[in-house]
Amino acid sequence: MSTGFPADSVGLVQPRRIPIAQPLTLDCGRVLPQHELMVETYGTLNAAHSNAVLICHALSGDHHAAGFHDAQDRKPGWWDSCIGPGKPIDTNRFFVVSLNNLGGCQGSTGPSTVNPETGRPYGPDFPLLTVRDWVRSQALLADALGIGRWAAVVGGSLGGMQVMQWTIDQPERVAHALVIAAAPKLSAQNIAFNEIARQAILSDPDFHGGRFYDHGVVPTHGLKLARMLGHITYLSDEAMRAKFGRLQRVNQFSFNFDVEFEVESYLRYQGQSFVERFDANTYLLMTKALDYFDPAREHGDDLAAAFRRAQARFLVIAFSSDWRFSPQRSREIVRALVRAGRDVSYALIESTLGHDDFLMPIPQYQRVLRDYLDRVAREAGT
Amino acid sequence: MSTGFPADSVGLVQPRRIPIAQPLTLDCGRVLPQHELMVETYGTLNAAHSNAVLICHALSGDHHAAGFHDAQDRKPGWWDSCIGPGKPIDTNRFFVVSLNNLGGCQGSTGPSTVNPETGRPYGPDFPLLTVRDWVRSQALLADALGIGRWAAVVGGSLGGMQVMQWTIDQPERVAHALVIAAAPKLSAQNIAFNEIARQAILSDPDFHGGRFYDHGVVPTHGLKLARMLGHITYLSDEAMRAKFGRLQRVNQFSFNFDVEFEVESYLRYQGQSFVERFDANTYLLMTKALDYFDPAREHGDDLAAAFRRAQARFLVIAFSSDWRFSPQRSREIVRALVRAGRDVSYALIESTLGHDDFLMPIPQYQRVLRDYLDRVAREAGT
Repeated sequence: MSTGFPADSVGLVQPRRIPIAQPLTLDCGRVLPQHELMVETYGTLNAAHSNAVLICHALSGDHHAAGFHDAQDRKPGWWDSCIGPGKPIDTNRFFVVSLNNLGGCQGSTGPSTVNPETGRPYGPDFPLLTVRDWVRSQALLADALGIGRWAAVVGGSLGGMQVMQWTIDQPERVAHALVIAAAPKLSAQNIAFNEIARQAILSDPDFHGGRFYDHGVVPTHGLKLARMLGHITYLSDEAMRAKFGRLQRVNQFSFNFDVEFEVESYLRYQGQSFVERFDANTYLLMTKALDYFDPAREHGDDLAAAFRRAQARFLVIAFSSDWRFSPQRSREIVRALVRAGRDVSYALIESTLGHDDFLMPIPQYQRVLRDYLDRVAREAGT
Repeated sequence: MSTGFPADSVGLVQPRRIPIAQPLTLDCGRVLPQHELMVETYGTLNAAHSNAVLICHALSGDHHAAGFHDAQDRKPGWWDSCIGPGKPIDTNRFFVVSLNNLGGCQGSTGPSTVNPETGRPYGPDFPLLTVRDWVRSQALLADALGIGRWAAVVGGSLGGMQVMQWTIDQPERVAHALVIAAAPKLSAQNIAFNEIARQAILSDPDFHGGRFYDHGVVPTHGLKLARMLGHITYLSDEAMRAKFGRLQRVNQFSFNFDVEFEVESYLRYQGQSFVERFDANTYLLMTKALDYFDPAREHGDDLAAAFRRAQARFLVIAFSSDWRFSPQRSREIVRALVRAGRDVSYALIESTLGHDDFLMPIPQYQRVLRDYLDRVAREAGT
């Protein structure tokens, strides 16, 4: 397919914008007459259309999950370690679909795209969404791609929440569900982090009530703070210690507010680079979708009752060092699935980095994914 | 002493401002020609001056540790559960001294007080301080009060750090050291939280480089965010769950950014009330003092070497649910004290609330304090 890329890479990929012409009724009650989704696909859909795998992204993810956008591109997609020929999500066997969710900021219809009714960016007029809304939108995408039933729906973190919602809302369309580093709903502490991130953005004077596009500015400080805060929850305390110690960059204290410790430098860098690639309104929307996620809620606060609708078989994966969505939260999912009589495998991966480990090429993790997906592929006849 | 106050209360107390006339050379190299400290005392200094106990406050604490400021006052000092006649720190036996630290904002010389050289608030001209600087200032206060040696120096969290520094820098002046819910230095994660809090304040347009007093404004949003962030670390995940569940205040989602979950309401309230009583420059200074605290650093990164200077006997107390300064951090202190050949008792208190538990009247905690301080009092001849 290309030259100069690793042999196990999907190589050069070309995202495409897929129009969804059907009106979409959202949980908030509003209707989107149409929308567009930015999509990448890897591998080939087989004649039976039985080998399609959907990748659901996390809070700041997008459609670019694997491969490269041009020959000079040095950074592959965000889950390139897992997706490619011969990799756990093997593109020699699967047709992999990865999208930027509705409400995103990497090409799909969202707060930063132009509202056809006004000719200006939606901004705060863009509706807040739920994970259920995303599943509705992704189901329309599946229709557009001619995929009746996914061989597997796969996602980590907020992506894992979409996977669960798929099995509940579209039970006949999911053969296997891979729920990675997720939780059945947010804890009060999780919501607290989200709330502070939102307040940082909302209180930035450059936010202008979400209409910052019209003012030619970006709520840099607020979005930066939000991202810095996120990073605290993505890394374990131990990982931060190992990565930064409390290493001082200087021998003497400066007695001012310049960077003095490595972790300060890391956070400021992460915050700054995020501001350059992410939209503040999308960040707000994503955190609200997280807060709202609670599939048990519509089933008498009984998660097992929700999962009784599911037909998929499940693989649930947790990481020992994850304190954002700890293994305890994954076990809540597993217990509910068992109570619901569903077929579920559970893997606890020994890890050190924290929540971010779900993106890492940890050998035990990759083996589990490979073994499970090998079974999925065989069932799909590929 | 008063009417209408509980029998085990110190009752009505009157803070007083004590001038420290001696110049104070700070770790940053600057010299404060003089300063003032806001102080409360409870109980009576005995003739031998052997029964004095110093209370060191934490990040947002002050001199008002016990009793009431007027007859209508419904909220006693911040550690009233522990200080009073017949309470663990028994004011029938001890002369208790509580101060607002140098750099504070409750009456002691600090960024918000008037710089006599300019006639305007110090603001950013006030030097950043270290825990060592506080010990120097508190030692001058002890001189002013005629106290040669403390029967005990007691503090939780950042207060516990001052206690440790006292034993190292003024070994002959501390008989007993009570180090509660503290750490030998901050972890990278601790520093990360502080750094985000600082960035929230520093990036608030109303901060004006620390000269907001001159503009008649306060960096409300930044200080509020900083405090909200702090509260995440003061409560355990379990406590937050128990306290707020993820209880929605409304049956239907609002699909906007109004308060929807109890924890959001709690954080906004805590943030707002803090802004009304605390100074942003003091907050910055306090977080920096925390980051800089590292007594091992001046002794070849060997905490035991630092403690070899100490003459005090130690009580170290940790709380099982504290994730800000976890029991593991207290055990690091205990291990270093043991290696240094110091006399140390260690108590792990079973608790649920988190770091905030050091302020709570937990029976096991109060018994440990009471038993230990009974010994201290007997040794002091009271």
